[in-house]
Amino acid sequence: MRHADALDQLAGLLGPRLSRSDAERAQHGRSESHFPTVLPDAVAYPETAAEVQELVRICAEHRCPVTGWGAGTSLEGHGLAVKGGVVVDFTRMNKVLEVRPADMDVTIQPGVTREALNEELRATGLFFPVDPGANASLGGMAMTRASGTTTVRYGSMRENVLGVEAVLADGRIIRTGTRARKSAAGYDLTALMVGSEGTLGLVTELTLRLHGIPEATSAGICAFPDMHAAVTAVMETIQMGIPMARIEFVDAATARAFTAYSGLEMAEAPHLLVEFHGSPESVAQDAERFAEIVADHGASPFRWSTREEERRALWAMRHNGYYAILAARKGARGLVTDMCVPISQLATAVEETQADIAAGSIPGPILGHVGDGNFHAILLIDPDQPAELEEAKRLSHRMAERALRLGGTCTGEHGVGMGKLPYMEAEHGAGWDVMGEIKQALDPLGILNPGKLVRQG
Amino acid sequence: MRHADALDQLAGLLGPRLSRSDAERAQHGRSESHFPTVLPDAVAYPETAAEVQELVRICAEHRCPVTGWGAGTSLEGHGLAVKGGVVVDFTRMNKVLEVRPADMDVTIQPGVTREALNEELRATGLFFPVDPGANASLGGMAMTRASGTTTVRYGSMRENVLGVEAVLADGRIIRTGTRARKSAAGYDLTALMVGSEGTLGLVTELTLRLHGIPEATSAGICAFPDMHAAVTAVMETIQMGIPMARIEFVDAATARAFTAYSGLEMAEAPHLLVEFHGSPESVAQDAERFAEIVADHGASPFRWSTREEERRALWAMRHNGYYAILAARKGARGLVTDMCVPISQLATAVEETQADIAAGSIPGPILGHVGDGNFHAILLIDPDQPAELEEAKRLSHRMAERALRLGGTCTGEHGVGMGKLPYMEAEHGAGWDVMGEIKQALDPLGILNPGKLVRQG
Ligand SMILES: Cc1cc2nc3c(=O)[nH]c(=O)nc-3n(C[C@H](O)[C@H](O)[C@H](O)COP(=O)(O)OP(=O)(O)OC[C@H]3O[C@@H](n4cnc5c(N)ncnc54)[C@H](O)[C@@H]3O)c2cc1C
Ligand SMILES: Cc1cc2nc3c(=O)[nH]c(=O)nc-3n(C[C@H](O)[C@H](O)[C@H](O)COP(=O)(O)OP(=O)(O)OC[C@H]3O[C@@H](n4cnc5c(N)ncnc54)[C@H](O)[C@@H]3O)c2cc1C
Repeated sequence: MRHADALDQLAGLLGPRLSRSDAERAQHGRSESHFPTVLPDAVAYPETAAEVQELVRICAEHRCPVTGWGAGTSLEGHGLAVKGGVVVDFTRMNKVLEVRPADMDVTIQPGVTREALNEELRATGLFFPVDPGANASLGGMAMTRASGTTTVRYGSMRENVLGVEAVLADGRIIRTGTRARKSAAGYDLTALMVGSEGTLGLVTELTLRLHGIPEATSAGICAFPDMHAAVTAVMETIQMGIPMARIEFVDAATARAFTAYSGLEMAEAPHLLVEFHGSPESVAQDAERFAEIVADHGASPFRWSTREEERRALWAMRHNGYYAILAARKGARGLVTDMCVPISQLATAVEETQADIAAGSIPGPILGHVGDGNFHAILLIDPDQPAELEEAKRLSHRMAERALRLGGTCTGEHGVGMGKLPYMEAEHGAGWDVMGEIKQALDPLGILNPGKLVRQG
Repeated sequence: MRHADALDQLAGLLGPRLSRSDAERAQHGRSESHFPTVLPDAVAYPETAAEVQELVRICAEHRCPVTGWGAGTSLEGHGLAVKGGVVVDFTRMNKVLEVRPADMDVTIQPGVTREALNEELRATGLFFPVDPGANASLGGMAMTRASGTTTVRYGSMRENVLGVEAVLADGRIIRTGTRARKSAAGYDLTALMVGSEGTLGLVTELTLRLHGIPEATSAGICAFPDMHAAVTAVMETIQMGIPMARIEFVDAATARAFTAYSGLEMAEAPHLLVEFHGSPESVAQDAERFAEIVADHGASPFRWSTREEERRALWAMRHNGYYAILAARKGARGLVTDMCVPISQLATAVEETQADIAAGSIPGPILGHVGDGNFHAILLIDPDQPAELEEAKRLSHRMAERALRLGGTCTGEHGVGMGKLPYMEAEHGAGWDVMGEIKQALDPLGILNPGKLVRQG
């Protein structure tokens, strides 16, 4: 076994909380996507920052790779220990440490999941808005710079992490940011850590910005004659300054999958799902102004409601979108793409992508956070047909190139991991070298999640 | 003369746009605050990124310091060439390159000022919200991570810079970010550059996020029996989720100075100045809900208006605040402090600061962006009395320490420059070393704005 000395020392540190069992290695060796399984040498379950610090020091001494693990829901093979070593699973560091309602912030350990956090916050009238579909960990969400349906209004992890505590590659502990709402005191280390995918440090604590649960919420759905009409309606809504809290696009294929999966009846047509937050008067007014815009674009009458249970059903359907789409092709596995472009290019981006998929042989329903210019095609492949995986990869490749050609990014929210490494040079040019220089400065031995994000030597 | 070879080569590159005149050196050797004048060896006025690149290469070869210069309004001696060398004045790079209304973004050169930008945007129905009092350059504002009265609603430069083009210390040009609204593609180099004060690169282009000019605006002002009541009203307004576009606090001394300077009549009491953006209905409703909150705290009736000229007068008064306060003491110079704390600590922070100033012998009116927990005491000193400068520095020192003790930052928006260097270690701990390691990795010769932001060797 590789890294045997490191593992022995880690076993001394963590006792039974260092596992070398096949079952746990396998569980931490697969990803939510098409990447082949890679077994780590061991899985560690630390309980304190001090343990993480000691773990990293041991690994640094033996040059043993260290890869963080939150809920394992990332989609580009982020958490796979492709150079072996230890996977550090943060599920035992799952405490909400301090909620400060007056400051609308909270300090938590990284293993807290977004659902657990919002459950804990319920009594305070506050909530944490970033909501990737999966019940991800906040540590993992910070590391992938996750976003979701509410990002159009409340921002992504970039805007909602006030600071982190992190153990660096040499075992130093840093605390970035302060609890003040803003600061001009030097380089923005919080922003540098957010989205770094565990390649610069292991996060052991996060302080997050919270938001007040809105007094009133209105939500609704409408169908469009075609995708272009739906996207144009989104652009107009943004330009009119109507404050959307959520605005999601689903194409006809997705609408069909939703109907089959959820029982809610949707026409087989492109749809927008939207939500407004504010006072009872303002959300009614926002919904009515939105209804006028979509009517101008030939939409079905915009049905909206302020009733909690109808809203919940709508967003539950959206959050189950991935599984609804998977269910649309029996036994299929999904390859999830993640384009994000300037809003003016959105219609072109979706149209070209739909045409490209239609010309091929595998289904690829589309849905996305269109208020941010971000959408996903979920390419449904038969895992027993290697040719289908190859076709999905080609489609995904063309989507990434299309995103760059249209002035956007190869990944709006899922991150680089391994899947988007091939586009980093094209997207960032010399900036990618700069990322490598920062990585080299802060992790000269390359022990933190090696094989990801930066150029591989 | 130091750096003579570099200067000769720069003269060859720029001709008359490299000035060694005493007048221009003097103009670029002073700051808007108490720091002593430091003459640079020369002042360069490049017109293109290619010229900046060549300039940096020449300077790198000769290890000649290079310090950027926007409008020269920063308050911590940021732009002073304390190790000599060349000051690069960006006023000739002042073009708005492309406005894209559909995407609500704009690409500009760094020398464009915020007023010029908003002038240029007027016809589009869009505006750029970040507004430090001064008519600063957008390049300088990005470099200090500036914010202002509207940050509580629209964010600071951190949230409103989509990407930059920058020339690094070795002459490489990088372009950070994309025009997509969000991205998870690797380290956030845009955020790393924003707030870096010209120590990591010279910015030659910026792409900024724009916002729609709101359909309607309501603004108003009210007086409070004491500071505590005003601050509590702010906290409640935030917690109620009433979407303030601006909320500014001024203390009694500032109110007196405003009255004397502007002719608008204000009671000699703490005040809040506020503004709401939205639809005609929503801004009326917001103003009324705010009026109820402040009434509960014993405020004078909240007078508000949607009339453009009344609003303009209000905010002109606020934007002239610094000069109004300076005028309150004849011949005085201001030392401007910049605390930012969690909202729950704001009342304590202001109270302790007021008491500390009152116990001394120099005036220090207070005003600030209280929605962000950020406020300034403007310490008015007689430039002929060195003892007063010393006292102001002691007060400022205690404010910085107070900010850290209360969980905040030594600078909410002005930046580090030289004035806040002494607090970086206390605020960031090992994080400050990490900043130094990033600086070392990207500027190993230390030619970019040496003497600022990171630990000095
Ligand atoms: C059905 C479905 C829907 C999804 N929808 C969205 C969506 O809408 N938006 C979106 O952004 N994403 C979405 N995702 C992707 C995924 O949920 C996000 O990437 C999420 O942020 C991953 O969090 P995690 O806790 O699962 O992290 P993991 O997958 O466990 O880890 C992610 C990365 O972070 C590192 N890491 C984890 N914890 C730490 C730590 N404490 N310190 C250092 N490094 C650490 C890992 O090494 C890895 O590189 C979706 C995924 C699924 C399966
Ligand atoms: C009356 C008054 C009120 C103010 N109010 C506020 C306020 O409310 N909020 C706030 O944030 N600030 C405020 N300030 C401070 C000041 O306006 C800001 O710090 C502003 O961002 C400075 O911009 P500038 O163009 O003047 O930059 P400069 O002072 O010229 O430069 C600032 C820093 O950026 C560097 N730099 C400039 N341009 C470039 C470039 N293109 N590339 C690389 N480096 C560059 C310089 O080297 C320097 O380190 C105020 C100042 C005054 C005088």
